[in-house]
Amino acid sequence: MGHTLKPVMTVAELSAFFVKAFPQALAGEEGSSDVGTLIEEIGPGTVRVRRKVSEANLRPGGTISGPTMMALADHAMYAVILAHIGPVALAVTTNLNINFIRKPALCDLIAEAKLLKLGKRLAVGEVSIYSAGEEDAPVAHVTSTYSIPPTR
Amino acid sequence: MGHTLKPVMTVAELSAFFVKAFPQALAGEEGSSDVGTLIEEIGPGTVRVRRKVSEANLRPGGTISGPTMMALADHAMYAVILAHIGPVALAVTTNLNINFIRKPALCDLIAEAKLLKLGKRLAVGEVSIYSAGEEDAPVAHVTSTYSIPPTR
Amino acid sequence: MGHTLKPVMTVAELSAFFVKAFPQALAGEEGSSDVGTLIEEIGPGTVRVRRKVSEANLRPGGTISGPTMMALADHAMYAVILAHIGPVALAVTTNLNINFIRKPALCDLIAEAKLLKLGKRLAVGEVSIYSAGEEDAPVAHVTSTYSIPPTR
Amino acid sequence: MGHTLKPVMTVAELSAFFVKAFPQALAGEEGSSDVGTLIEEIGPGTVRVRRKVSEANLRPGGTISGPTMMALADHAMYAVILAHIGPVALAVTTNLNINFIRKPALCDLIAEAKLLKLGKRLAVGEVSIYSAGEEDAPVAHVTSTYSIPPTR
Repeated sequence: MGHTLKPVMTVAELSAFFVKAFPQALAGEEGSSDVGTLIEEIGPGTVRVRRKVSEANLRPGGTISGPTMMALADHAMYAVILAHIGPVALAVTTNLNINFIRKPALCDLIAEAKLLKLGKRLAVGEVSIYSAGEEDAPVAHVTSTYSIPPTR
Repeated sequence: MGHTLKPVMTVAELSAFFVKAFPQALAGEEGSSDVGTLIEEIGPGTVRVRRKVSEANLRPGGTISGPTMMALADHAMYAVILAHIGPVALAVTTNLNINFIRKPALCDLIAEAKLLKLGKRLAVGEVSIYSAGEEDAPVAHVTSTYSIPPTR
Repeated sequence: MGHTLKPVMTVAELSAFFVKAFPQALAGEEGSSDVGTLIEEIGPGTVRVRRKVSEANLRPGGTISGPTMMALADHAMYAVILAHIGPVALAVTTNLNINFIRKPALCDLIAEAKLLKLGKRLAVGEVSIYSAGEEDAPVAHVTSTYSIPPTR
Repeated sequence: MGHTLKPVMTVAELSAFFVKAFPQALAGEEGSSDVGTLIEEIGPGTVRVRRKVSEANLRPGGTISGPTMMALADHAMYAVILAHIGPVALAVTTNLNINFIRKPALCDLIAEAKLLKLGKRLAVGEVSIYSAGEEDAPVAHVTSTYSIPPTR
């Protein structure tokens, strides 16, 4: 449905919104200071987000934790919605379904979020998560629904 | 299926395993030092986990973040599986589906994990997440599947 | 959340609604004439539905098909919502997630639907599916979300 | 991951397998005689299935039922797996998650199934369902996991 969707925010505007609204998220989940996420690209119905990966995200055995990927997917979904409705609405996640597909490499993660629907009340999207540089072998696949408040 | 399942680890043993295997998880997700999770109870097919909630978990508007709840659910699922197969196996999440039901209060979260199946290859469970003291109004509901390695 | 929910329809009223609205569903999925579903019980936040199982539902190897269980779960979710908001609203499924847990026996299926939330815009519930008489070993577990139209 | 996957069955072979294994499925869900599914195309990691739609699939209000779409998605997932591992294995669905996105038109449905992973024990895929001729506006999106028996 990309051709019917037009972003209303630039990468700079969306990044500035997240820095202001979620200082801790951009600085890494929940308070750690050395990692974070970057909005890399906004397209019609899409947003690409990069998650810098550091030691703090690693599980025993040296892989990236599931919760790190879930947080990234949720972040990318929120970003793709705001990019298309603007920074005003207080949208909230109602459902997130993740399939973990293969072990990620120990490098940055890329999340490609795509809107499947942007309705008045519900937004539905999918997010593919890759290890940077290996975009044809997703490490996780997510679908998610956000509820959009009636007041927007 | 509770009556057919017998835990093989105590709360003390399981807690000790997590402290050793995931020092950062027990100290709070990803490096923050002031919050953490506690295994409170193990029963036939069940585990109850408490997530202490601090400022670092809060979203704008003062609610607990979705990723915090997803991380807690995954943690509780992993705990209930290990409690019943022992600390050896390297089980991995293959699927997690979460429905966010209502806004949590600003207090500790309780996760009640229950095994629906503990097979040789797959474990399936559900996790209800409550605000402490409001156990009849879940804030989120999760189902999840773990893959259990053949070598156990 | 059972104690806060009150059904507004009886088993007879709800059954009559389904017979009128979905003649083919009660007569068996999509036109077959020998099987069907029965609403057995309505409680606070709950509905129990029985699916009579005949040859037509069987897969090779003699088990009940996945789609039969998905249709039953969707039916039970719709029933539990209508039982609590009345037969007026045109609620629609927005999400359904099913975990198939074990092979069902070749006998009737029971679906226990439970509302986790009944909001103005969204209803969330879970459905456990059992083989009749084996209620402690679910064959499938479902969570589902319905969107409730603003006009109710 | 399309480029690493090679189908091992032709459309004719896969269709013949389904006719033999699921006579009732190809003749329409559960015994009705006038509708059915057609395997239209097999590619690397993909299968396209058409569902002919008739009166029997309609809900009140004249739309195609949710269970019809769930059955189609499950069928397409099974088809894409068999197309790549051959007709021998008895794979079973372990999880299916569906988001209903918009009301389908009253015409044939197309299901595009794509493998995200084809492992030794688990296959994960996604299925997009469209109304025939409107391939840029999916009516439903599905992710699903199949368990593949060790004996293949």
